[in-house]
Amino acid sequence: MNEDDDVLLIDDDVAEPSSENTGIQAGDELYKIKNEFESLNYEIVQNRIRQDELRRHNKTSSTTKELERWLICFFIGALTGAIGVVITVSIEALSGLKQKWLNNLFHPREVESHVSSFVPVLVWCWLDTSFVLISGLMCAFLAPVAAGSGIPQIKCFLNGVRFPKVIRLKTLIVKVLGIILAVSGGLVCGKEGPMVHAGAVLAGGISQGNSLSLGITTSIFEHFRDDHEKRDFVAAGAAAGVSAAFGAPVGGVLFALEEAASFWNQPLTWRIFFCSMTSFMSLNYGLTAMKTDLQFGNFSAVGLLNFGKFDNSMWYYYELPLFVLMGVIGGLLGACFVQLNKVITINRIHLRPSRLAKTLETGCIALLSTCAYIVMLYVNPYCRDETEDGPAGSAISMKEFQHLRMNCGPHQYNTMSLLSFGTPETAVKAMFHEPYDFFHSTTLLIFLPIYWLLACLTYGISVPSGLFVPALLCGATWGRLVHILMATICGVEKISDPSVYALVGAAAGLAGTVRMTLSLCVIIIEATGNLTLALPITAVLITSKAVGDLFNKGIYDTHIHLWGVPILEWEPPPNSELIKATGIMSKPVVGFRSVETVRNLYNELASSNHQHNGFPVTDANNGDYQGLVLRSHILLILKNRLFYDPSRPQDLLSLTELRSAYPRYFSVSETGIEEVDMDKLVDLRPYINKSVHMLTVESTLESIFRLFRALGLRHAVVVDKALKPIGIVTRKDIARFRAENEAVHRIPIDEFRQSHVYYD
Amino acid sequence: MNEDDDVLLIDDDVAEPSSENTGIQAGDELYKIKNEFESLNYEIVQNRIRQDELRRHNKTSSTTKELERWLICFFIGALTGAIGVVITVSIEALSGLKQKWLNNLFHPREVESHVSSFVPVLVWCWLDTSFVLISGLMCAFLAPVAAGSGIPQIKCFLNGVRFPKVIRLKTLIVKVLGIILAVSGGLVCGKEGPMVHAGAVLAGGISQGNSLSLGITTSIFEHFRDDHEKRDFVAAGAAAGVSAAFGAPVGGVLFALEEAASFWNQPLTWRIFFCSMTSFMSLNYGLTAMKTDLQFGNFSAVGLLNFGKFDNSMWYYYELPLFVLMGVIGGLLGACFVQLNKVITINRIHLRPSRLAKTLETGCIALLSTCAYIVMLYVNPYCRDETEDGPAGSAISMKEFQHLRMNCGPHQYNTMSLLSFGTPETAVKAMFHEPYDFFHSTTLLIFLPIYWLLACLTYGISVPSGLFVPALLCGATWGRLVHILMATICGVEKISDPSVYALVGAAAGLAGTVRMTLSLCVIIIEATGNLTLALPITAVLITSKAVGDLFNKGIYDTHIHLWGVPILEWEPPPNSELIKATGIMSKPVVGFRSVETVRNLYNELASSNHQHNGFPVTDANNGDYQGLVLRSHILLILKNRLFYDPSRPQDLLSLTELRSAYPRYFSVSETGIEEVDMDKLVDLRPYINKSVHMLTVESTLESIFRLFRALGLRHAVVVDKALKPIGIVTRKDIARFRAENEAVHRIPIDEFRQSHVYYD
Repeated sequence: MNEDDDVLLIDDDVAEPSSENTGIQAGDELYKIKNEFESLNYEIVQNRIRQDELRRHNKTSSTTKELERWLICFFIGALTGAIGVVITVSIEALSGLKQKWLNNLFHPREVESHVSSFVPVLVWCWLDTSFVLISGLMCAFLAPVAAGSGIPQIKCFLNGVRFPKVIRLKTLIVKVLGIILAVSGGLVCGKEGPMVHAGAVLAGGISQGNSLSLGITTSIFEHFRDDHEKRDFVAAGAAAGVSAAFGAPVGGVLFALEEAASFWNQPLTWRIFFCSMTSFMSLNYGLTAMKTDLQFGNFSAVGLLNFGKFDNSMWYYYELPLFVLMGVIGGLLGACFVQLNKVITINRIHLRPSRLAKTLETGCIALLSTCAYIVMLYVNPYCRDETEDGPAGSAISMKEFQHLRMNCGPHQYNTMSLLSFGTPETAVKAMFHEPYDFFHSTTLLIFLPIYWLLACLTYGISVPSGLFVPALLCGATWGRLVHILMATICGVEKISDPSVYALVGAAAGLAGTVRMTLSLCVIIIEATGNLTLALPITAVLITSKAVGDLFNKGIYDTHIHLWGVPILEWEPPPNSELIKATGIMSKPVVGFRSVETVRNLYNELASSNHQHNGFPVTDANNGDYQGLVLRSHILLILKNRLFYDPSRPQDLLSLTELRSAYPRYFSVSETGIEEVDMDKLVDLRPYINKSVHMLTVESTLESIFRLFRALGLRHAVVVDKALKPIGIVTRKDIARFRAENEAVHRIPIDEFRQSHVYYD
Repeated sequence: MNEDDDVLLIDDDVAEPSSENTGIQAGDELYKIKNEFESLNYEIVQNRIRQDELRRHNKTSSTTKELERWLICFFIGALTGAIGVVITVSIEALSGLKQKWLNNLFHPREVESHVSSFVPVLVWCWLDTSFVLISGLMCAFLAPVAAGSGIPQIKCFLNGVRFPKVIRLKTLIVKVLGIILAVSGGLVCGKEGPMVHAGAVLAGGISQGNSLSLGITTSIFEHFRDDHEKRDFVAAGAAAGVSAAFGAPVGGVLFALEEAASFWNQPLTWRIFFCSMTSFMSLNYGLTAMKTDLQFGNFSAVGLLNFGKFDNSMWYYYELPLFVLMGVIGGLLGACFVQLNKVITINRIHLRPSRLAKTLETGCIALLSTCAYIVMLYVNPYCRDETEDGPAGSAISMKEFQHLRMNCGPHQYNTMSLLSFGTPETAVKAMFHEPYDFFHSTTLLIFLPIYWLLACLTYGISVPSGLFVPALLCGATWGRLVHILMATICGVEKISDPSVYALVGAAAGLAGTVRMTLSLCVIIIEATGNLTLALPITAVLITSKAVGDLFNKGIYDTHIHLWGVPILEWEPPPNSELIKATGIMSKPVVGFRSVETVRNLYNELASSNHQHNGFPVTDANNGDYQGLVLRSHILLILKNRLFYDPSRPQDLLSLTELRSAYPRYFSVSETGIEEVDMDKLVDLRPYINKSVHMLTVESTLESIFRLFRALGLRHAVVVDKALKPIGIVTRKDIARFRAENEAVHRIPIDEFRQSHVYYD
């Protein structure tokens, strides 16, 4: 194999059947293949097994399977919604307590004058740091993969790359607890990205009917234990997560489709939508039942992140060029954000911190954030009078408004409280809905750069942290600044409401950072519940993404590329129609003969030169290419000691055996093969998947790319004119071509890979 | 080839490059292919041409192309919106005049008592019949393909099947004029389906930068003249049509994706959404500018079919089982509708009517409809008092309410007027928004069966006619009946508003008939502008589609199957993993050698046994399979007399020549080849697409299906172990397999095919 194979290796890291040549799908199939060159014995065995299969198949007929799929989707949706309720209620409770305590410390009831702020500042710093430290500890030591938003990991998973430990119960628990603590601890992060991850993990767990972490294995849903089915359910789970996070069921479906990025399948889409809708309903019933101030079953308080009602949202057609300009600003700011975060992330990795160091880093950043909040509060000179419903002129009720007086007079509030004391969700709402003159431009100008830098610093540390809310909040802040500027120039009555500007800014900020397109647009439209703003939002998103794309990739894709994960993009690399299969394939081919010695099998599987999942098999007599056999099948054959004995019918692996080990396969040394077995033979013929796609020396990279992309392939064999395998093209080879071609961070990838920082 | 080849033939009917082995895409590619076995001469020629290509390529670089695509999408959207405005305003003007005249005739101002209704009834019948007759005449004689909703035709087009003459300017004009006359003439049909078709035609026309019908050929956008690009634009046009028809930009995108059904491509989807959004905005600005009663730029009056505001739309959770039951009713009624319409359509075709007969049929049905309306009006005994704003207690204003007194007293109106005198859109709105006691159950019970039968009879006659509105109206009618029933049983205050029941019924009716899923759901949610009803609507749509699918296919698919069009479904046919390529391929292969005589080429192209578009080419020396060559390329070679002369470098076709003839290729007899040329040679080597997907004898139908479906292939060659082509699998072969397996209408398909009724 190519010598720099270790640069992009994750594909073959986990012994796992691909979706096309899937273990189980192929397993279903291979028993049915009538091999005309086989002996009669063979026929008999295979017939027996085929009848067995048929009986099984009738037992769990396709209608039952379909009903079960719907049932699973219902549970995924319901539980994702429930997790959303848990997260929301916990954060509100925890940060509510924290705020109440701090408020009492800063402004004790009995003393109406200024008191020393030393104690409350200390308590605040201590609280935040310890919340975040706990979150960081859990994350670093229990589930490092739970760090960050989880969206890039899910994106990789849906793209067809197994990211180890992403879909695990432990990851889910760390993610949920971690995000509650991180948000309550005042970190600059949102809970929306982690919701998507949570939904995906739930989907992975429920659909498999077992939990290897808990040691529970049931026989229910066992027919869904293959990569293809699991991926479909995980897509549904991700959709349910988005749906619960933003109150956007359609946006959730589009998110799953945009990221899953395979073939649009009507029944699947329909199921994903059902799941997404269930999650939306579950969250809403849950929230309205838990929160006493909401009417049960009233769906106006939709989503974890509630944008609130946009009633006063007329805009003027002459503002459209301005909105496009705001899109440009959003794109530029987003590109800066990504670039800065990339530099920080690369440096963070070059230091190769220990787990403890990573935990301490989270604590430091928490401390830094809290100090920044406190400084902002003290620096901000703008106050508002206190009334029964919150600050005078505020659109936000007392209940939601987290108030601090700080340097303001009695019966006044510091306007910065809305931005830096409550949860980021409250701040977003304040940006969207507070009237024109509520925030002074100085307040916003103090807040924006500090918050932006904190967000940039925070994304990538070892705690669960979403990026949506910080991006929205920064965008909304400069959106309001643009509004203030325009109002000064043109007069406030000639331009639209500040809420429109804040929303446009938020959309631009988000699109410039994450670079999602249709799903983001629909998410924002659904979250605002207003189609009138659809055109400016669309225009802004298009501009912002286009401008950002001129400079770099989106934040998720940037991180994925830094990890060196071989995901396939939307379109083939440029000039790929000029490149032939021979130019990208790996050679020589590691393959087996149709009847092979145990020694050869063992040695190749144990080889450290490669970690292939599929091996081409050639005819033992004439060397003709027969098809592919999977690593997992060979492992199971060896473990079950199904050696070839020409004198009697061969025992074959049963479907149950094939499924039992999914998805955590063992290594070849665990098969219990000893030296005495080494010269025995194994007959691979019944396990060959013969209906595989062949490439010729004339196949262009372009057509290979489209084949892999559309069918979710992982490997295909290149044959010469005599049908002899001369090379193998893997997903990695295609991804590597692009990486080399575009010279993306050769060295960092390599180091990332060796440091195993994200997926050890 | 197989003898029943003519059963499913449309695929190969039009000499047209496929999307995978596209003429132009392959053309782009083939010049770049470095054929290592070729002589030096060849190299020189190819290098020259490659540089030529490169220069061209730089001229229209990919960025320019991308910008042009966005520009085209903008124009498609803007013009589709404009056509929506034209249709709406024309229908309102025309039917407004008709209604005013009839109203004056029925109730002349000077006479306050009953007058003879003989004259007005006659005028009504005469008006309606003549409107529809004109529409039918245009349709039957000018563009038979403009009949019906156009959605099935667009579905076929997007599925990869060329439906002749669907994307033509003439078709568009007939469609627009025809639907205006048909709706004004009181036919039971809607204008929404035709809007989708109109958008698609516009897209086809604009993106090609020329109109062969008008004889205009420009050089702009010439690089978009291939099937693949055109299909993408047509998808955008269809989305724009849905967006304009229902005020549902997201629904439009989902419709295009659900029907286009290929591979989800992020940049494409994003463009489609932009197009859809432009159409929505264009329609709204147009409508608000044209209609004096609307505020310019106010987007509450969205879409051609305005569902109105659903403000009072709380529902109770205990109603959910009832809604599911309504879904069952919708599914059953829909299945009956499809079955009845199928029988009618088959009989209609068996009679093999002439064009004149088809025109007369439209007149008869118009007359029948009008008579039915008049009878319903006379039979309905329920009247309402007249007030300034329309009937007392009505939610619909005087402006929209088309009133007739008929058998009612002075200063009263017949409640049936709302249903059978105005446009169907008014009737739908009345169903959705009139208060609980507005319609008496008897009125609805009279209206429902008659309207249902008329709708069933109308769909399939030779006028442009959409099915959405009739299906919605029937559904809403029985939805209200269910509400009345429930109100009688439980009391009106314990159940939700009649508007909710009407909407649920409408959704059930529509889903039971057309069986669309996600896009329909989003369309309804967007048209109502209310997420509260999302859950019941989803539940109802799922049930209704599932129940309907137990009995038959949706109305569009039924018609497509009756036409014998080989579209590919979502999933491979059952048990397809047991079927090998050898079981479905056509053989012997019609192929050529790499250097072939003109005689052989001419004879095969002129052969009436087949109409293949792609031919496998084998090496002239050793018979090895080389790749595919396209019919269109061979035709152009022959026409340009580019014969093989070993003594000098060969002239090659230029890209411009390859594009010039797209999409209407000529027949082989028009190439001007004479007997003296017959023994000359043609060198096909530069035109071979070598990067094609090969199938082996071991390929299963399942994997072949997925390959064709995902990549939009039209043909693939099956090779044996020595790489010799032994058969060819076309889209038709796959579709035929399913048809034969499920025994769908062998005889009718055959006769349809021969009668050329839909696509002559």
